[in-house]
Amino acid sequence: MATQGQVITCKAAVAWEPNKPLVIEEVQVAPPKAGEVRVKILFSALCHTDAYTWSGKDPEGLFPCILGHEAAGIVESVGEGVTDVQPGDHVIPCYQAECKECKFCKSGKTNLCGKVRLATGAGVMFSDRKSRFSVNGKPLYHFMGTSTFSQYTVVHNVSVAKIDPKAPLEKVCLLGCGVSTGLGAVWNTAKVEPGSIVAVFGLGTIGLAVAEGAKAAGASRVIGIDIDRKKFDTAKNFGVTEFVNPKDHEKPIQQVIVDMTDGGVDYSFECIGNVSIMRAALECCHKGWGTSVIVGVAASGQEISTRPFQLVTGRVWKGTAFGGFKSRSHVPWLVDKYMKKEIKVDEYITHNLTLVDINKAFHLLHGGDCLRVVLNMNV
Amino acid sequence: MATQGQVITCKAAVAWEPNKPLVIEEVQVAPPKAGEVRVKILFSALCHTDAYTWSGKDPEGLFPCILGHEAAGIVESVGEGVTDVQPGDHVIPCYQAECKECKFCKSGKTNLCGKVRLATGAGVMFSDRKSRFSVNGKPLYHFMGTSTFSQYTVVHNVSVAKIDPKAPLEKVCLLGCGVSTGLGAVWNTAKVEPGSIVAVFGLGTIGLAVAEGAKAAGASRVIGIDIDRKKFDTAKNFGVTEFVNPKDHEKPIQQVIVDMTDGGVDYSFECIGNVSIMRAALECCHKGWGTSVIVGVAASGQEISTRPFQLVTGRVWKGTAFGGFKSRSHVPWLVDKYMKKEIKVDEYITHNLTLVDINKAFHLLHGGDCLRVVLNMNV
Repeated sequence: MATQGQVITCKAAVAWEPNKPLVIEEVQVAPPKAGEVRVKILFSALCHTDAYTWSGKDPEGLFPCILGHEAAGIVESVGEGVTDVQPGDHVIPCYQAECKECKFCKSGKTNLCGKVRLATGAGVMFSDRKSRFSVNGKPLYHFMGTSTFSQYTVVHNVSVAKIDPKAPLEKVCLLGCGVSTGLGAVWNTAKVEPGSIVAVFGLGTIGLAVAEGAKAAGASRVIGIDIDRKKFDTAKNFGVTEFVNPKDHEKPIQQVIVDMTDGGVDYSFECIGNVSIMRAALECCHKGWGTSVIVGVAASGQEISTRPFQLVTGRVWKGTAFGGFKSRSHVPWLVDKYMKKEIKVDEYITHNLTLVDINKAFHLLHGGDCLRVVLNMNV
Repeated sequence: MATQGQVITCKAAVAWEPNKPLVIEEVQVAPPKAGEVRVKILFSALCHTDAYTWSGKDPEGLFPCILGHEAAGIVESVGEGVTDVQPGDHVIPCYQAECKECKFCKSGKTNLCGKVRLATGAGVMFSDRKSRFSVNGKPLYHFMGTSTFSQYTVVHNVSVAKIDPKAPLEKVCLLGCGVSTGLGAVWNTAKVEPGSIVAVFGLGTIGLAVAEGAKAAGASRVIGIDIDRKKFDTAKNFGVTEFVNPKDHEKPIQQVIVDMTDGGVDYSFECIGNVSIMRAALECCHKGWGTSVIVGVAASGQEISTRPFQLVTGRVWKGTAFGGFKSRSHVPWLVDKYMKKEIKVDEYITHNLTLVDINKAFHLLHGGDCLRVVLNMNV
């Protein structure tokens, strides 16, 4: 392409300071260095993790930065040594890398690749520990190794999944985080079996994806727990069979669930990020085998607790990041499942806006009616 | 036998009150009712759980009672309908029942049979919710469904494992609790694989059995952690390859272990019952896959805690009771392994005393040189 090797100037939403409106700026995006890929982002969705860092509550948040990590686009150019993708490939940037070479990737036990983690955690690129973004010479930090609230971004080649070019990018961008996380929590982390009783705490995008995954895995009951009653109608479409509103009960919610399931559920999933609910999710599990998976991200400094007796009597406490999916290997597989209509994606998109409306989009995200807002990045 | 159907008067150590010396009394042991077995106890070992309840710190402890749950003996008589054992059979009473019929037994996922649990928890027998022990007409509570500090005891038929009559009862009595728990924590609950790095917190009987189990499972390193340096020489014989004394380090012990293992251990086991150590045991596990198993029993009311990030990044927190062994099925198998010299038992016995010296035995149990005290019940 004509832009190859050149700095690209494009629009991006810049978070100059915590908790201040994002500003649409003309930013400079440097060409990709060795092992890097520059991607034209076509569609980017908003996730609560973006909002959390933006809020300033994330002590590891770095400013100024370009947020965004749930997106899809087309490779514009690649740096030296990159052979897995080439210009024109349709891709999903992945905040969880997969290098296929590190101790983690080779273990066969986890998706948590360690290759570029220190760099992405520091808001820079691996090769030179510098940013590829700037505004008038002032560097901007990268975010989660993705920074998809920009019309162009630079990612590590280990952090980009090549997908079917026929897939609609305005839909499959959601497979970059929330939907995949929920499905994977069920399929990879919990490994729910047919006939299982499942409890899902929190019926946002991730909770609904958990419900969908549980239904696909053959769960006999999927109990959805949320304090917003109006979420139930939507939740039914995703596989939730029963709805419990903690506000309707005097008893602790774990006791309510235990009572309605003859001793507890086989699997529970916390999809909120609330440490009290994480405890409830563990304690509503059946003695002897109940497994609880933490999917939500708690605020910094908060801790989970329970009586050790809960574990000694057979409950298991786990967590998941990106649903245990290996990003470059599994995201294309998820896209294929979507193309075969085996998983939902469209149904999670409640709002479509454009990049310039990103502040409005964040406002919408916090409303009870919103699952995912997808931004068209190029209008 | 001549005693069948008769009340037997024999010696037992009675805990009349919490934290007061046990008293050797002439007790009356009623004949077994339907589904029950009366066992002549020949050897009984002491375990810290006996000491815990005796201390009065266990809010579920009931007094007066007959403690003891790690023992071996010979069936004296059986109640109506009992066909699995008969008079003369050599047996190990099991505090964890196995009915093979309840939801738990049938699940294939746990050893925590629920059949007689409510009765044993209440210190009585299942059929009539009464005790079979009395002193001059005053009933004494059963303990853990075993009450082996008596020359005769009555147990549920679902709580008695028939073993090889050639096995020395003065040794294999230990398979009724501690040794089995440690081995099973490794083999059943954690499922340690060859080459694994293992950390064992607390080098008492259970910790040493964990080390032995880990060595047998092919662990490449078994790191023993204890504040008593003189335990290391003994621990080497059970498979511990490295010793760490938290008192030698300024850093938190979890950080010490992480630093010496390139990121953490594959499996850790807490064999003390200290909630702070349970946290350390989890947090010294490797990101992505490290699994921590709680084996020790914490004091009532205490809670474990950690940051949820520990689980979200792939660590798993579990617990175990009786090492996940199904009692009636697996205790005979463990006895056979001992007879084939595949597992140690003799090496855990540091002291041999008689029933009348039981208070001295409890005193010994709290000393650093003691692993197990075995009481000869009939001299």
